[in-house]
Amino acid sequence: MAEKVSKSKKETQGITVKKSEDMSEWYNEVVLKSGMADFAPIGGCMIIRPHGYAVWERIHAALDRMLKESGHKNAYFPMFIPERFLKKEADHFEGFNPEVAWVEDENERYAVRPTSETIIYDAYSKWLRSWRDLPILLNQWCNIVRWETKVTKIFLRTREFLWQEGHTVHATEDEADEEVMKILDFYEKLAEDYLAVPVIKGRKSEAEKFAGAYYTTAIESLMPDGKSLQMGTSHNLGQHFSKVFDIKYLDKDGKYKRVWQTSWGVSTRLIGSVIMTHGDDRGLVLPPRIAPIHVVIVPIIFDRDRKKVFDECEKLRKLLSRKWEVHFDSRDSYSAGWKFNEWEMKGVPVRIEIGPKDVAKKQAVMVLRDTGEKKSVKMKELPKAIDEELEAMQKRLLDKARKVMNSSMVEAKTYNDVKVSVAEKKMVHAFWCGDPGCEEAVKNDTAATIRVIPFEQKEKGKCIVCGKKADTKVYFARAY
Amino acid sequence: MAEKVSKSKKETQGITVKKSEDMSEWYNEVVLKSGMADFAPIGGCMIIRPHGYAVWERIHAALDRMLKESGHKNAYFPMFIPERFLKKEADHFEGFNPEVAWVEDENERYAVRPTSETIIYDAYSKWLRSWRDLPILLNQWCNIVRWETKVTKIFLRTREFLWQEGHTVHATEDEADEEVMKILDFYEKLAEDYLAVPVIKGRKSEAEKFAGAYYTTAIESLMPDGKSLQMGTSHNLGQHFSKVFDIKYLDKDGKYKRVWQTSWGVSTRLIGSVIMTHGDDRGLVLPPRIAPIHVVIVPIIFDRDRKKVFDECEKLRKLLSRKWEVHFDSRDSYSAGWKFNEWEMKGVPVRIEIGPKDVAKKQAVMVLRDTGEKKSVKMKELPKAIDEELEAMQKRLLDKARKVMNSSMVEAKTYNDVKVSVAEKKMVHAFWCGDPGCEEAVKNDTAATIRVIPFEQKEKGKCIVCGKKADTKVYFARAY
Repeated sequence: MAEKVSKSKKETQGITVKKSEDMSEWYNEVVLKSGMADFAPIGGCMIIRPHGYAVWERIHAALDRMLKESGHKNAYFPMFIPERFLKKEADHFEGFNPEVAWVEDENERYAVRPTSETIIYDAYSKWLRSWRDLPILLNQWCNIVRWETKVTKIFLRTREFLWQEGHTVHATEDEADEEVMKILDFYEKLAEDYLAVPVIKGRKSEAEKFAGAYYTTAIESLMPDGKSLQMGTSHNLGQHFSKVFDIKYLDKDGKYKRVWQTSWGVSTRLIGSVIMTHGDDRGLVLPPRIAPIHVVIVPIIFDRDRKKVFDECEKLRKLLSRKWEVHFDSRDSYSAGWKFNEWEMKGVPVRIEIGPKDVAKKQAVMVLRDTGEKKSVKMKELPKAIDEELEAMQKRLLDKARKVMNSSMVEAKTYNDVKVSVAEKKMVHAFWCGDPGCEEAVKNDTAATIRVIPFEQKEKGKCIVCGKKADTKVYFARAY
Repeated sequence: MAEKVSKSKKETQGITVKKSEDMSEWYNEVVLKSGMADFAPIGGCMIIRPHGYAVWERIHAALDRMLKESGHKNAYFPMFIPERFLKKEADHFEGFNPEVAWVEDENERYAVRPTSETIIYDAYSKWLRSWRDLPILLNQWCNIVRWETKVTKIFLRTREFLWQEGHTVHATEDEADEEVMKILDFYEKLAEDYLAVPVIKGRKSEAEKFAGAYYTTAIESLMPDGKSLQMGTSHNLGQHFSKVFDIKYLDKDGKYKRVWQTSWGVSTRLIGSVIMTHGDDRGLVLPPRIAPIHVVIVPIIFDRDRKKVFDECEKLRKLLSRKWEVHFDSRDSYSAGWKFNEWEMKGVPVRIEIGPKDVAKKQAVMVLRDTGEKKSVKMKELPKAIDEELEAMQKRLLDKARKVMNSSMVEAKTYNDVKVSVAEKKMVHAFWCGDPGCEEAVKNDTAATIRVIPFEQKEKGKCIVCGKKADTKVYFARAY
């Protein structure tokens, strides 16, 4: 894919294609030109550059806080997973085996972790003794490898990516169910309140569930190109792994009992959802709560006023830095216009421009990244104005994204509706009887899959494929 | 090594060997029983458990702050390094090749990163264009693999560990020198002000420098068993890598110039230094600034007073949590004595005990982990007392460790002094002429190596080995 961005396009400061015309090419240009990431010289790999990594640090911090406040702790398990572990749970092995990079020593073969259930559960089987040790609520932040990925779509599909994976152990099925839903709610909160990306929640079909899970739940969002993006998954693993790893505890009644488990994760893919959802033809648009820089100050100078303007900018930078991440772009070697373009490309929510006239009038010009709105604000009112604007922008981005998403979701009455709507890049809400055959028919006919089965099901109707009785309405869409 | 801790010893709550009698066995027991880490089922690997990972998070936070405040930014580069990159710098390849785990696809062979110079510098060669882009100051937090490690010494020597690696690019040699020293000062600050581990700073000899470096600087600390631990290294890479990766920039004068580079790192090994330096026969002793829990509250209860005591504990927990990490151990299924032992094992700096009499007298008993000192403190004076005690403990731990270290450092007058002192597990300060042959003689005769060559050299004398003129005094010791 790297080759698609030609050299001359790379040299141009702005984006050379419109998001509405070629979102894939637009995406690549935004990722590269905003300094979020780069293609690596290894097939399928990415380099996360400082601007992209800083967004990941903010996502990390927000979720880590939720997890710690609810009693979860971080740990770190080896990246090398013995093949004999991976093979223990048959579905799990079958699902991941094709994606594994192997290394070996004289003793055995090891998978470079495609996910860590097996190595972690081997440890749990040794650590867990009594009911007093339950629940076990661990999480790890690490890198993950899916070796067979060869087409690089930065942040969305790469051989190596960063994620968190939670792995919990519970005494009962109910407690595991509760944990699965608690985490899914955290993921929804992370997506909507921080990334400003609207999601739908629900369960996955058997065909789409995690390899080795009892059931899988997920948050999905429909991207502006009509493809659904799986943003996070939370699995109830049932006793599938506790059986094969023999994870049990001595209960109060003196009996050994087998545990129930969950696992769940979100990855650097989330950054891709932010870029696609909010970006525009001038580049990135970052929601304030995950923006590495909230405010950039750009001086508008003419030689004789340089010192006066710079002093004012520096004063303002200090003042605003008490509450926000602020950058004063004091470079002499770039024009103000060039700087405007660069910071817009990087998606900084608020730009403050200060020129000699502004200094004289004790004011500054404030420009909002998402709307382009421009207004003069008195210096002393700036802190309050920025506070309000950042909060309004955070909300506005989610509202706007939800509107866009809703406008691409349709109800299907007939099977032909499904075909037409999927072709029109819509997400289709339709009845499904639960038969994997009907699910597969849709996939074969339209390339759309069941993205989620919402938890609350009130209506009854007829399967959109076979016409048989159905009490489940699901969302179909093509997916990343 | 896992087998060395027998099952019965594992079951015992306390440490079964004295630190002074068998530090290696003592170390393993402390690591396992404090819940810091565990042996992994893969030769040479460790599992970092929540208590150990929480210490790493605090080390991470402290250093990350220093790096960011000085203009460094975090990024993330692929873990897979093409063999053709690793081979470009001959010394670098020769140094790391024996330690590499390889994976391959149909195109080529990749090293699982043993260090990331080459993959990062390939990117720098593409990104760097003009003097405006300098300096480049990047850092990454990641996992590292040294495949040939087979003897596990948790935190100190494992096949996989966590670290940060900084990689910077500068216009001149002076700027690179300055960066190397700035980072070494950060590492010294991290070690002494946070870990309370005293260090000596200096340069490495040619024999001990990083594979591919122009020169290497390091901080080292002498552990209580008389072995020196390399705690962090900061390298000036000169133009070794910029030559082979062709990293150059267009300068103001219109000429292309080759850059100077540095790289530097500290790892989870630092946790090992904390355990060895401060731990005692009751377990871990954690310096307050990196302790995951500062204060543990243990209720001393009898049935009829349970509610009254618990309410008081909970009230205190809330109050103290405003400033510190506080844990109220409200478990009913363990005795107070068992809890005392457990929190001492985990190295929590301050324990507060509250019984019915304390509630009546509006006081609590405060116990300090390092000295064992116990005193009654009025409730209302507790916050101030804890503040003072934590600060005093942080300082006391460093002072005590420095005294222990200094008492094991000796001046050698004759070559026989060197042999005797190294055998007595001392670090030896002696003149060295600079000849690698003399360095090797010491290594062959005593197994001691030159740990550091201090930056400031005032005295002149005669080489301890060959007797020739020497203007350099160095530290010899056996090392981890």
